[in-house]
Amino acid sequence: MRIFVAGIDGYLGWSLALYLGARGHEVGGADNFFRRQWVEEMGSWSATPIPPMQDRVRAFKKRFGRELPFWNGDLREYPLVEQMIKEFQPDALVHLGECPSAPYSMVDVQHAVFVQTNNIVTTFNLLFAIRDLRPNCHLVKLGTMGEYGTPDIDIPEGFFEIEFRGRRDTLPFPRQAGSWYHWSKVHGSNNIMFACRNWGLRATDVMQGVVFGTRIDEIGDEPALLSRFDFDQCFGTAVNRYCAQAVIGHPLTLFGKGGQRRGFLPLRDSMQCLTLALENPPQRPGEYRVFNQFEEVYDLISLAQKVQKVAREMELKVEIVRLENPRKELEEHYYRPDHKHLFDLGYKPSRDVEAELRIMLGDLARYRDRIDARRDVLIPDIRWNGKREKVRWLEKVDLEDYQQKVGLKADRRRN
Amino acid sequence: MRIFVAGIDGYLGWSLALYLGARGHEVGGADNFFRRQWVEEMGSWSATPIPPMQDRVRAFKKRFGRELPFWNGDLREYPLVEQMIKEFQPDALVHLGECPSAPYSMVDVQHAVFVQTNNIVTTFNLLFAIRDLRPNCHLVKLGTMGEYGTPDIDIPEGFFEIEFRGRRDTLPFPRQAGSWYHWSKVHGSNNIMFACRNWGLRATDVMQGVVFGTRIDEIGDEPALLSRFDFDQCFGTAVNRYCAQAVIGHPLTLFGKGGQRRGFLPLRDSMQCLTLALENPPQRPGEYRVFNQFEEVYDLISLAQKVQKVAREMELKVEIVRLENPRKELEEHYYRPDHKHLFDLGYKPSRDVEAELRIMLGDLARYRDRIDARRDVLIPDIRWNGKREKVRWLEKVDLEDYQQKVGLKADRRRN
Repeated sequence: MRIFVAGIDGYLGWSLALYLGARGHEVGGADNFFRRQWVEEMGSWSATPIPPMQDRVRAFKKRFGRELPFWNGDLREYPLVEQMIKEFQPDALVHLGECPSAPYSMVDVQHAVFVQTNNIVTTFNLLFAIRDLRPNCHLVKLGTMGEYGTPDIDIPEGFFEIEFRGRRDTLPFPRQAGSWYHWSKVHGSNNIMFACRNWGLRATDVMQGVVFGTRIDEIGDEPALLSRFDFDQCFGTAVNRYCAQAVIGHPLTLFGKGGQRRGFLPLRDSMQCLTLALENPPQRPGEYRVFNQFEEVYDLISLAQKVQKVAREMELKVEIVRLENPRKELEEHYYRPDHKHLFDLGYKPSRDVEAELRIMLGDLARYRDRIDARRDVLIPDIRWNGKREKVRWLEKVDLEDYQQKVGLKADRRRN
Repeated sequence: MRIFVAGIDGYLGWSLALYLGARGHEVGGADNFFRRQWVEEMGSWSATPIPPMQDRVRAFKKRFGRELPFWNGDLREYPLVEQMIKEFQPDALVHLGECPSAPYSMVDVQHAVFVQTNNIVTTFNLLFAIRDLRPNCHLVKLGTMGEYGTPDIDIPEGFFEIEFRGRRDTLPFPRQAGSWYHWSKVHGSNNIMFACRNWGLRATDVMQGVVFGTRIDEIGDEPALLSRFDFDQCFGTAVNRYCAQAVIGHPLTLFGKGGQRRGFLPLRDSMQCLTLALENPPQRPGEYRVFNQFEEVYDLISLAQKVQKVAREMELKVEIVRLENPRKELEEHYYRPDHKHLFDLGYKPSRDVEAELRIMLGDLARYRDRIDARRDVLIPDIRWNGKREKVRWLEKVDLEDYQQKVGLKADRRRN
């Protein structure tokens, strides 16, 4: 298949290019290196030293013996998007070209406006270009499990049938996002659902959980093929940040009580799932599918404890601490999302979180100095109330005891 | 109260300024005259000859003996929004400064992007300025009943309690909008709901039905106080367009079967309802209320028939015809939205649609030549499939017979 990756220089984008390349697909992509700039703006850098795009493209060609057509530019510019689609003629287009950070969107009015308009306009441009130039092209759009928030009922995959006052209908599941970024993904989902219904486009909207991992096998030992790996407050997600903390002897930092539960998946599972969506496109014009994409639901304390356990086995000294929560979110809540569609397509989860963590800590140990040089970015100062102020450390408590008390251990088995 | 009207030069904005002025409120406002430009872009103008803003402001002062502070500028510019709020210190802010047209948003990618980014960014700027400068200011945001679409179940006011797999929760009612414009209003509603929850702001989100009318009593006979009145395919809504058609002897044009049902209300009722929301603000920080604002549900055939009846009484010769529907929408559907909140606050509907139509036809007869000079804009060419092509006339059918057959008459009584 001819697969275009919008945002190919990013954390998911670059690995996806390699994963698809290894499976024999023709891959092309675009980026304007915003992610590198945003992380720099946060005073950070990728823990792994990633090379410039021309080196990545050269290494891709050397590995797979095929060109990687690349467009350097901003997807908010419609003429560029038209040109890419015309020249590459994709069978599928994966939209990873959005700004993916909740805290980044919460900095101030300029950041909120930037994140929402960037994410909406890039999606619009892709939708219109597909409609007018490549109407059967399958759009795979990266959404987030965070679109749903944490309702007190089960979370289906996008739609649910309900009864209300004696009548039944199948409706989109209500979204209750928790940041301007997460809402931008809801806006995008709504726009794509409408484009499919109105114009007969085909799309898969991926409600992805939190991804962790330093690598996929396709990277091998080639430094120019390395994945980026962020650990700052905006672009470093929970498990990735814990691993970065562990290798420099920094305590693992929970936000608030740490009882938050989310769907998680390793980077290699994310690649497997996106590829399953790509290789099994919607059959019917107008089909809009929603996949909840995660391996399993975990609470943050348990994940931090897993990192701690593996780190200790590797003789790293690791504490777990609680920080004041910079976000406004429930810290103890019901959480039971479905994730059946991808399993039905053949998703085989790698399932061994501790093995993955071992690989991550091994990889990151090599870049300990780079993480240590930016250790200041590990403690957040972007708060949901609009203030910019480092969060305080909370008093130490017995996490095991807390988990027992609020039933996290029991619930995890059920989920 | 000190009430700021964003979009004060528009159809609702100007009448609201007069209505509030007459009730003794201190009114200020902003506009950058986009509405005048958009209507001109559509090859049209207001049927009523409206004067420039400085004349409106002067006439306001003459009528009410008070200044009308006015800011000429674009609400997408945050420094301007900050300045307005700082200088005016509003107790309430009514956001009517969005682009309000479904067809306009469906023209092409540029129009879709413009409508959504304009509507999102203006709302963001107001939310942040309220948070930082005037946190108790009540935001009244104009949404639309079109956010809900036409689900096959009753439509509550914003939220509903449901049972799903044996658990219960109160959730936002799912939205299924039918144009990029309507989705922009959904995006805005979502953003405002989050701002209230996250920052403790107070807002009323008004899901308004289709407004019709040439005037409110407060306009009187002063030409400089006239309301604008649009009849083009983008800014002329159903009943207004029928009345403009009637006075020039143009057939009244239904889209498709004409069985579409919507909530409608006269301009004077809209002013009454917005004022009820303003004078009864949310009591609790963080309160986000949704009001479904319409007098009654009507189907389009019945409204066209009412216009025809009143026009015939005034000796205007009026036919009703069906046009190919340029939109993608259900033309026969269940529709039963709640509208209790405003009645609970004391909304007294004027209830006499035919009396209102009589006033409208009388007003518009004076501007017959202005409508006739732009009669070409009465037939749409903006299609939901992206093509730009005038719609065809459909074959004549017996509308009475059709109404009986699909149960519109019976249903109307029930609604």
